[in-house]
Amino acid sequence: MTLALDAAAQDLLFREARTANTFTDEPVTDEQVQAIYDLVKFGPTAMNAQPLRVVLVRTPEARERLVNLMSDGNKEKTASAPLVAILAVDNEFHEELPTQFPHFPGAKDMLSDRAGREPMAAMNAALQAGYFIIGVRAAGLAAGPMAGYDAAGIDKEFFGDGEHTVLAVVNIGKPGENAWFPRGPRLAYDEVVTTV
Amino acid sequence: MTLALDAAAQDLLFREARTANTFTDEPVTDEQVQAIYDLVKFGPTAMNAQPLRVVLVRTPEARERLVNLMSDGNKEKTASAPLVAILAVDNEFHEELPTQFPHFPGAKDMLSDRAGREPMAAMNAALQAGYFIIGVRAAGLAAGPMAGYDAAGIDKEFFGDGEHTVLAVVNIGKPGENAWFPRGPRLAYDEVVTTV
Repeated sequence: MTLALDAAAQDLLFREARTANTFTDEPVTDEQVQAIYDLVKFGPTAMNAQPLRVVLVRTPEARERLVNLMSDGNKEKTASAPLVAILAVDNEFHEELPTQFPHFPGAKDMLSDRAGREPMAAMNAALQAGYFIIGVRAAGLAAGPMAGYDAAGIDKEFFGDGEHTVLAVVNIGKPGENAWFPRGPRLAYDEVVTTV
Repeated sequence: MTLALDAAAQDLLFREARTANTFTDEPVTDEQVQAIYDLVKFGPTAMNAQPLRVVLVRTPEARERLVNLMSDGNKEKTASAPLVAILAVDNEFHEELPTQFPHFPGAKDMLSDRAGREPMAAMNAALQAGYFIIGVRAAGLAAGPMAGYDAAGIDKEFFGDGEHTVLAVVNIGKPGENAWFPRGPRLAYDEVVTTV
């Protein structure tokens, strides 16, 4: 046993978990989403920055607005998934640093330039998105993250404040019939890890 | 039980896992790093892109070169951790898409512009970095990710090909004495998750 994590948990989170393309009708509750968030919120980020925001698209009207902004190949699954979540970056995350990272009082001012802090916002929100996807799987649900959409359209339709940028749209639910494409290959250890 | 993941695994990966600042002398083996990679490589990314690269800094000479490029507050722990890994983005990841994402043959050419694909590289590498940190914890080890360093210096010293950009430097090992700072606060569910 090289890993401390038990084999069932390894399977649940990584080995048997797959990106789902169809879902059953079983609802995903707010309680489940809260349990996911309250687990993965502890994932580490730089300077304890927490730029990830999650919009649960629950009403039929909001779902339709979102489907219209998805690329053609993603429209049907976005329309039919039990829950669809928009993951977004809050580019004003630095405003929270005085409370979230109090032992570096200068953090907020150091990041006063929007262009300068955008890469940090994007990087930490993506880290948090990774934790969130793991959390969906920890809840016994399948995640279907998608990147094919009209990003500027989603930013305008669902935020409209110029402060938020969409990072991914994630279908969430129990996998349905023929939910999986064949798993794509992964790079081998020696192609990714080198030693100096 | 709102989550399917057992409580011990929740603690191991998120609730009790913390960013370590000191480590014991116990080595971290290549076998452990391979087990981590072979678990987390299955984490999902957009178009099965796999831009994350990991450099294990094992020789004293390489460690010294890295320590010299870390910010002052990170030098001591970088010098003393059992293993230090540089996580980097391979901005030429699109070259692999014909084999990694064969059902979209146009993917590589669509991403032929470096500036256009850099955000996709950064986003997916950060997702993979999140999975990697979870994998370190799955191995029963503590991760100490750091963002304070001379990024251009690391790119030049450890890659020098203009194709790789450092994403994070991560200390890895068993936590030592006084390894933890007090845990920083996390945003509440209602501050992060909204419903439309």
